Amino acid sequence: MKSVAILGASGYSGQETLDRVLAHPGLELVALGSDSLAGSPAGAFDPRLQRLGLPDFTTNDEALAAGADVVFCCLDHERAAGLSCSEQLSRVVVDLSGAHRLADPAAYDEWYGFVHPHPESLAGWSYAVPELSPPTTGLIANPGCYATAVLLALQPLVGAIEPDGVVVDAKSGVSGAGRTLKESSHAGAVLETLTPYRVGTHQHEPEIAQALGFDVCLVPHLLPVRRGLVATCYAVPAADDLRERLEAAYAASAVVTVVPEGAVPELSRVQGTDAAEVGLFADRATGRAIVICAIDNLGKGAAGQAVQNANLALGLEETAGLRLAGVPV
Amino acid sequence: MKSVAILGASGYSGQETLDRVLAHPGLELVALGSDSLAGSPAGAFDPRLQRLGLPDFTTNDEALAAGADVVFCCLDHERAAGLSCSEQLSRVVVDLSGAHRLADPAAYDEWYGFVHPHPESLAGWSYAVPELSPPTTGLIANPGCYATAVLLALQPLVGAIEPDGVVVDAKSGVSGAGRTLKESSHAGAVLETLTPYRVGTHQHEPEIAQALGFDVCLVPHLLPVRRGLVATCYAVPAADDLRERLEAAYAASAVVTVVPEGAVPELSRVQGTDAAEVGLFADRATGRAIVICAIDNLGKGAAGQAVQNANLALGLEETAGLRLAGVPV
Amino acid sequence: MKSVAILGASGYSGQETLDRVLAHPGLELVALGSDSLAGSPAGAFDPRLQRLGLPDFTTNDEALAAGADVVFCCLDHERAAGLSCSEQLSRVVVDLSGAHRLADPAAYDEWYGFVHPHPESLAGWSYAVPELSPPTTGLIANPGCYATAVLLALQPLVGAIEPDGVVVDAKSGVSGAGRTLKESSHAGAVLETLTPYRVGTHQHEPEIAQALGFDVCLVPHLLPVRRGLVATCYAVPAADDLRERLEAAYAASAVVTVVPEGAVPELSRVQGTDAAEVGLFADRATGRAIVICAIDNLGKGAAGQAVQNANLALGLEETAGLRLAGVPV
Amino acid sequence: MKSVAILGASGYSGQETLDRVLAHPGLELVALGSDSLAGSPAGAFDPRLQRLGLPDFTTNDEALAAGADVVFCCLDHERAAGLSCSEQLSRVVVDLSGAHRLADPAAYDEWYGFVHPHPESLAGWSYAVPELSPPTTGLIANPGCYATAVLLALQPLVGAIEPDGVVVDAKSGVSGAGRTLKESSHAGAVLETLTPYRVGTHQHEPEIAQALGFDVCLVPHLLPVRRGLVATCYAVPAADDLRERLEAAYAASAVVTVVPEGAVPELSRVQGTDAAEVGLFADRATGRAIVICAIDNLGKGAAGQAVQNANLALGLEETAGLRLAGVPV
Repeated sequence: MKSVAILGASGYSGQETLDRVLAHPGLELVALGSDSLAGSPAGAFDPRLQRLGLPDFTTNDEALAAGADVVFCCLDHERAAGLSCSEQLSRVVVDLSGAHRLADPAAYDEWYGFVHPHPESLAGWSYAVPELSPPTTGLIANPGCYATAVLLALQPLVGAIEPDGVVVDAKSGVSGAGRTLKESSHAGAVLETLTPYRVGTHQHEPEIAQALGFDVCLVPHLLPVRRGLVATCYAVPAADDLRERLEAAYAASAVVTVVPEGAVPELSRVQGTDAAEVGLFADRATGRAIVICAIDNLGKGAAGQAVQNANLALGLEETAGLRLAGVPV
Repeated sequence: MKSVAILGASGYSGQETLDRVLAHPGLELVALGSDSLAGSPAGAFDPRLQRLGLPDFTTNDEALAAGADVVFCCLDHERAAGLSCSEQLSRVVVDLSGAHRLADPAAYDEWYGFVHPHPESLAGWSYAVPELSPPTTGLIANPGCYATAVLLALQPLVGAIEPDGVVVDAKSGVSGAGRTLKESSHAGAVLETLTPYRVGTHQHEPEIAQALGFDVCLVPHLLPVRRGLVATCYAVPAADDLRERLEAAYAASAVVTVVPEGAVPELSRVQGTDAAEVGLFADRATGRAIVICAIDNLGKGAAGQAVQNANLALGLEETAGLRLAGVPV
Repeated sequence: MKSVAILGASGYSGQETLDRVLAHPGLELVALGSDSLAGSPAGAFDPRLQRLGLPDFTTNDEALAAGADVVFCCLDHERAAGLSCSEQLSRVVVDLSGAHRLADPAAYDEWYGFVHPHPESLAGWSYAVPELSPPTTGLIANPGCYATAVLLALQPLVGAIEPDGVVVDAKSGVSGAGRTLKESSHAGAVLETLTPYRVGTHQHEPEIAQALGFDVCLVPHLLPVRRGLVATCYAVPAADDLRERLEAAYAASAVVTVVPEGAVPELSRVQGTDAAEVGLFADRATGRAIVICAIDNLGKGAAGQAVQNANLALGLEETAGLRLAGVPV
Repeated sequence: MKSVAILGASGYSGQETLDRVLAHPGLELVALGSDSLAGSPAGAFDPRLQRLGLPDFTTNDEALAAGADVVFCCLDHERAAGLSCSEQLSRVVVDLSGAHRLADPAAYDEWYGFVHPHPESLAGWSYAVPELSPPTTGLIANPGCYATAVLLALQPLVGAIEPDGVVVDAKSGVSGAGRTLKESSHAGAVLETLTPYRVGTHQHEPEIAQALGFDVCLVPHLLPVRRGLVATCYAVPAADDLRERLEAAYAASAVVTVVPEGAVPELSRVQGTDAAEVGLFADRATGRAIVICAIDNLGKGAAGQAVQNANLALGLEETAGLRLAGVPV
């Protein structure tokens, strides 16, 4: 059994990570960090957890210092950037924030709005989508939710699509914005509507560009749903084997399914799971390729992928602890 | 007072048209057609209408034959195409279906799936967005909901954007799919999810292309909301006065508002109304122009625009009967 | 034209009141109070208002001192209780908060959690549901949203139902909780779920009891909708003319509709309007009477009723400025 | 390994049962019945199932004849009533429909609208809520979703509440109405609204009355959510140990949690799971006891409870195959 600490365990992605860890046959929770809940029982959000004999919440510093084999860091970007993580401290660190995703420190100024406190450390982190670029070190930068969906849709097609003119129109449920109270997450601003936000300025664009090798035009929209993310990607084809490339990329995957020709990826099938669906279409009028990816922003887009990455780094079964079966209602 | 007949008055757009007509100081309802409800009282969907002394539902043929000054045709595409409408029959006919929008009869085979029964008549119809191309005859083809939003966003920019590579990612509430029972409109398939549909094959594309002069890549998505439509349009700018062009186009309009720089169009402000909002953004990474338009698919996207067009054709106040004030919750 | 000031105009009910006032042929806005937005233009929430030449936001004190003929007070309970309102100051004051609804000052300690600062003033206020108890003075305590729905359902039946054992199960959209940020209004806590709250302790119970003459057991639930309220009321019948009593009570009303036997009140028909629907049923197993009332919590449950009350107090047309037509999608 | 056949496997509860069976370490699917899908692959609704080597859909008759150890019958009431099920045919039959829940055949005429074709067989079926009345035979009538929630809330309190005057106000997501297309399940009739239905006439009332020993007044409401059910139950207390009784009833249960005093059951914690939460409150004004139960209508309210019952009948681990961990967003 590998021991696990979770930092930022009171947020959505922290809670989801906890859920996967508790279902994992090879992981054992030893520390649950949350500065706001330190001292509270693990079941603060769910009385059912009281039965399980879990450790109480501690501060994040205490949780980091617990010496766990694996640390899942679910802190905000700037706080995570400030941590001095190292493989000496824990064998595996998976950072779910954006703090270690970009190789270029200057990009943090531009896209995240803060100066990275440890620019020299960035080269030590492995940006990892398990199906496309599995982790190569124990320091793992877990991709952003939008980036995950876009890369699953487009990375297998690099070389077969024109790098210019790629458009990504993305839609996410409100849990993607986290549990913090803000006007844009007030139910009165979310229910029964759809809102574009950070139009043309979302911080997941540079990690997509870094992985694909070219920029895309990314516009995210807030959906009136709790969880789930659909990325609709538009590109000019430069080859005629796009479907074959996608199918080959995921032929061995238990996580990503390429849906049959004519079928659309169904968000409802992946909500509450760590699975992904990808579909490919050709536009009748312009011939453009349309690649659609559906994931759960908290599953494959965050906690599920984090556990999947940790499994690979630890040499465990890749899908241990993941939720892959869905209930399509 | 001008007399009004509504055909297909039992559907969503028929009911919305009825609502505008009842609020209109210059229109008087004389016939309410619905083959399925013929003989029923006008208040079949709303007991409050019982107080108003409205005519009962008749068949659509009877309603058409009532000799009203204005006929609003809310029938399905194929049924509407089969009508022999003429200005002899009524001074003004506004067809809310797609049956008279396309100048090229062959396009009906390709995009609508039926052979147009009156191809020779198509030249007599005026495809009319009041702010961009007001009606020039009494036979008015009211634009589709997606087309309305896209044209409001892009038509003032023709000449200032590259005609190649325009992408339109559109999202609509379920009322856009009508009241007919089908699997895709079952609440279990709509609630808490988002579904792309008719990907790259939606029949509003050719009317957009006809009006803009070039094709676009259009993908519609079904939103888990009752009503409302957002079109996010992506284009390569070919001039630097895009905002000025949009503001000039709508400076005199009481219907369309260009929101200030940095603000996003808010769907909630236009839901339940006949107003529209347009916003313009530049993508940081690629410089692409992003133009977003929000309308109510049943308001500016159907019944509101139909009444607005009828007002123009009849020489009435353009916004009479329209709902323009919103309640932004 | 009567002049109007709105206090607390930045909240949901303030904005809705503004919407009715702007549509009212006999009212003219002269002051718009909001301590947080003082100095901002009236169109802070809606750029379309810029065209109308409205006064800027001022502080609430300034708005109160503007000497308007009518003051709509949309402040929170405790702030409103602290105002020294009088008919000397303005001819009509409509308080949409709970600060002047209860005749017994001690009830404020128990149900609202504060000591009423002006207990002697309470007797001067008229608790007014226009259809049941129209205002008798210019100081009008506008009923709570839940109380409005419950009184419309039950007050005509007093004497025909047993006063013991009345249960009210009520459900409201999130706008009933106001625009303030709190965990329970975060979209992640509201979407795709239903939450009972203030179970057995909601502050609208005492005003219901005061009007009916007996206590009820009231449990409110938060619905995943923006606006709208349904109260399902259960009572043991003590007469057999319940339907006749309801129909008689609202026979002359343009606001309240008793739906036909077998039909249910439809929330979607009253959302966005100031109308109400009431339906009556008998339980097959127990014979209990079930009376259901649907209103819009911000319409008949707040701003619409406030304007209706002001109309009565000013001698204007009762429904002037109200939204009574609905669009049932 | 016990072999399993599912009848009516194309409906919501059939699909959910399949999901539990696939996750169950002691069950093996051998037949998947659906008259409409016979001949189609098991993955008709979910392409991910293609990988699992499942049997194709057959007719329901063929699936019943497959001689499985356990049959889950997810057919409609009347079709299920017509089956000649027996323990000779299969060791365990769990009927998720209402066809075998009521001991009194005449009740089928009144509440279900059909004459029961096998009235003599009803005595052989065991109406089973595992925590309250575990199955005593292999023929198991799985309780209705509303009945499950109401019995979990009230059955432990029988003797401690007055049998007269119990009111149950229940709210369910749309999946409770099944996959069949009907006007009331059209998304336009469900989204952003709440609708009472079968007011005072719902067919789950008699099974509740049969289990409790007295009638209740039951009103169901359709929620704008996909899945999940909340029953708010009102009763006059006849003892002061209600909380103790509830806690004692579920002290040993891994499925039902009594939430702490002051806390409300949270639907979001049980959605997508087979767990239940129960909360108890006292009404301040009337002293009435309010007992609230939250379940997933397709989980504990259908498929989860069916598998739980089958586990008990087969002597397997009670919670094998169940989903009990939740993700509270």
